[in-house]
Amino acid sequence: MMTQVEHIGIAVKDLGISNELFSKLLGVQPFKQEEVASEGVITSFFQVGQTKIELLEGTHENSPITKFIDKKGEGIHHIAFEVANIYEEMERLKGEGFTLLNEVPKDGADNKLVCFLHPKGTNAVLVELCQSKVLKT
Amino acid sequence: MMTQVEHIGIAVKDLGISNELFSKLLGVQPFKQEEVASEGVITSFFQVGQTKIELLEGTHENSPITKFIDKKGEGIHHIAFEVANIYEEMERLKGEGFTLLNEVPKDGADNKLVCFLHPKGTNAVLVELCQSKVLKT
Repeated sequence: MMTQVEHIGIAVKDLGISNELFSKLLGVQPFKQEEVASEGVITSFFQVGQTKIELLEGTHENSPITKFIDKKGEGIHHIAFEVANIYEEMERLKGEGFTLLNEVPKDGADNKLVCFLHPKGTNAVLVELCQSKVLKT
Repeated sequence: MMTQVEHIGIAVKDLGISNELFSKLLGVQPFKQEEVASEGVITSFFQVGQTKIELLEGTHENSPITKFIDKKGEGIHHIAFEVANIYEEMERLKGEGFTLLNEVPKDGADNKLVCFLHPKGTNAVLVELCQSKVLKT
């Protein structure tokens, strides 16, 4: 079950410049900056209601974000949905015919287990499932 | 002030096919379908937590959605933020140097007053501001 839009990922060329831009746009400062070395990205997060805006800058030329920008330019990269149980949701979506890009959930930014769906099966929208590894208090 | 991500707009070629696809993906049915003749679109809405997923199909070849798909293919088209007061927010953003695509708010889908920002000033992200015309009860 998908419970909410956890975040929207936006590919940017320069995190410093875009942090400033989105601070002005959203009227709030980013609450966190974090490198995910395994993904080749530095990220920053803004909170707007229930949802985070995640800016992503690639850290090397083979980073998925650098490749995305080379091909399509800056812009919205993915939508992430919070799920109650990522394993159950992966099973459900596989059963519905969606193609998962990860066989098992992997570590994402912000203490999450994540899994991506192939955009060919989702109207060209890159969809991420995520489940917090931190127990809700 | 931006209070939440009101919806994420996704450009699709065939609303019927995509309604079915997103029903499977999100595990819920669309709660509403609506034509916005002034924009040349038919839309459908899914609720996920606080946020709606809005699918948009162009109704003619000059529709902004048809043109978007011709140029970039199907995919995420815009992010809409709910604002407390759209007039105040438009003033604030103009003051911050953003370019508004509408001088005054216009009628959007789902009983909203809306205004778009020029994506050249927002990292190539098409941003919509919206304020409900329906009083909250």
